Amino acid sequence: MVPTQTRILFARTPEGQLRPDDFAPETGLVGDPRAGELLCRNILLSIDPAARAWIQSRTYREQVLPGQVMPGFTLSEVIRSHDPRHPVGTIVLIDGGWQEYAVVPGSTARPITVRAPLTHHLSTLGLTGVTAWVGLHEVGRPRSGETMVVSAAAGATGNVAGQLGRAVGMRVVGIAGSDDKCTWLVNELGFDGAVNHRSPELRRELKALCPDGVDLYFDNVGGPLLDQLLTLLNARGRVVCCGAVSQYDTDSPAPGPRFVPGLVVTKRLRLEGFIVTDHEDTWARAEQEMAELIADGRLRVAEQVVDGLAGAPSALVGLLAGNNIGKQLVRIAPDPG
Amino acid sequence: MVPTQTRILFARTPEGQLRPDDFAPETGLVGDPRAGELLCRNILLSIDPAARAWIQSRTYREQVLPGQVMPGFTLSEVIRSHDPRHPVGTIVLIDGGWQEYAVVPGSTARPITVRAPLTHHLSTLGLTGVTAWVGLHEVGRPRSGETMVVSAAAGATGNVAGQLGRAVGMRVVGIAGSDDKCTWLVNELGFDGAVNHRSPELRRELKALCPDGVDLYFDNVGGPLLDQLLTLLNARGRVVCCGAVSQYDTDSPAPGPRFVPGLVVTKRLRLEGFIVTDHEDTWARAEQEMAELIADGRLRVAEQVVDGLAGAPSALVGLLAGNNIGKQLVRIAPDPG
Repeated sequence: MVPTQTRILFARTPEGQLRPDDFAPETGLVGDPRAGELLCRNILLSIDPAARAWIQSRTYREQVLPGQVMPGFTLSEVIRSHDPRHPVGTIVLIDGGWQEYAVVPGSTARPITVRAPLTHHLSTLGLTGVTAWVGLHEVGRPRSGETMVVSAAAGATGNVAGQLGRAVGMRVVGIAGSDDKCTWLVNELGFDGAVNHRSPELRRELKALCPDGVDLYFDNVGGPLLDQLLTLLNARGRVVCCGAVSQYDTDSPAPGPRFVPGLVVTKRLRLEGFIVTDHEDTWARAEQEMAELIADGRLRVAEQVVDGLAGAPSALVGLLAGNNIGKQLVRIAPDPG
Repeated sequence: MVPTQTRILFARTPEGQLRPDDFAPETGLVGDPRAGELLCRNILLSIDPAARAWIQSRTYREQVLPGQVMPGFTLSEVIRSHDPRHPVGTIVLIDGGWQEYAVVPGSTARPITVRAPLTHHLSTLGLTGVTAWVGLHEVGRPRSGETMVVSAAAGATGNVAGQLGRAVGMRVVGIAGSDDKCTWLVNELGFDGAVNHRSPELRRELKALCPDGVDLYFDNVGGPLLDQLLTLLNARGRVVCCGAVSQYDTDSPAPGPRFVPGLVVTKRLRLEGFIVTDHEDTWARAEQEMAELIADGRLRVAEQVVDGLAGAPSALVGLLAGNNIGKQLVRIAPDPG
């Protein structure tokens, strides 16, 4: 039994961009699991852009308020169990938060059948990759030969969405935040093209890379880029609304897309949002399919791991600033022996 | 054979709001139908808000340019035929335009089985009503017990959409442009409630009329109202993007909805546009179902008919200003004897 632990609190609501010192570490007690609960040792922490939205307002979860432990998905090892479905030693995906140990209801834990390096189960084979799979297949309904554009394409979800689009025979063009990322997308991940979203010629470059127009826009960023893409979409085009990260890290979001709903009507477009946790029934299929693509070398796992819980605030701030390539993880503890 | 006819040209691109003198009548020749073509006498002309969009820019049809005959759907009688599918005397729906006679390819004409007053086939049983049916059933996918809000609810499509929603057991709340229209929606058409979009208490009134939130927004107007509704929609709510009339009659459209895509993601919303002519396969079913509802007294036909082609420009301007209740038609010639 470990009596105390380090945890990181969300300390204050940022004015404008989030900063590392909007978080504060503290030493707290490790809770005692009650009936139906588990005590878990957190091993790996997922850093997600949505965290910026969670502290800004109520989303699909209650708003995170100053003074609360910062939430976040973790891969964790059950070390005491009052739920027979999750015996001691099981690896589970939980909302373990930014802390060394977490007590959670067993009903909220998802057991992981470890079949790859543990990190993969929090990146491409985890929530992030499944998000890309569900967004592409369940919402986007792709067809071979169509053209897809992905924003934040070098990010955790975007890189997977693009690679999955290639795997079903789409032409895939990425939008990313630096020339290096664009080169990586094309040379390493096999994208058909990529453009830097800071390019003054963005629209012309996109048109050149999408000679048949755009059928599907996998949107991770929202903002002015969405407007641009609405003008490039073909009739009956689809927008998979996966995230709006351009709007998260600010207290003064950009104006909305002025071509909504005008072009939505005239081009018969569909914009659709989704949350991966609504699609539990397809999780196993998505994971299986992606594991096979990884084994075939058709899906590359892209992830960055920061060592130590203390690095979590900087990792989130860096993620929002676009510093990462692939999935951003924090290692809280070593893999179980 | 009639050698000359009156027709109305789109004369100049309006600055700001459309005015009647942006159109000009002229006397022109009646064309000669060639192989495969029909000469038709136009009887009734449909006045549609989309006409404002057609002259502003390219939409799902080529932009209408100054000097061209103003296009528009008509119910017309075939008076000379070079297409055996449409013998002389047939009543057809065509893009006959703002003129007394039209020459059109037989392939573009839809024969009408007249089973109601001819006007009904251009209002509730015509394109307008079928638009409401397709939008509600094919795009909106309504369920009994859900709540629907309809904007421009006293308009040609809105009044039908609302009544069809009632027919499938939805709670239906209309938004309209005057207190008189609101009273008419509730007292005459059986809406569960209606609010004046000019009310300073619009949001509060909508919330009061929709105690279980809004599941489906049938949007005919776009603009700031769409933002309001996005905040009222329940998780997994749908927006049927049928029109954006608030954006048509202006050369300086309002900014876009700032909750797109933020709330689209967090609430898993679906915004989807459609054009009724994409759904030809469901036309007969929609017409049949609405004819039965009319016969049962569960669907009231709401239409206004202006007499004489010369009244078309004012009818369109009045429509855009929100003066009409129900479908706006222009009678060009008497019904065939």
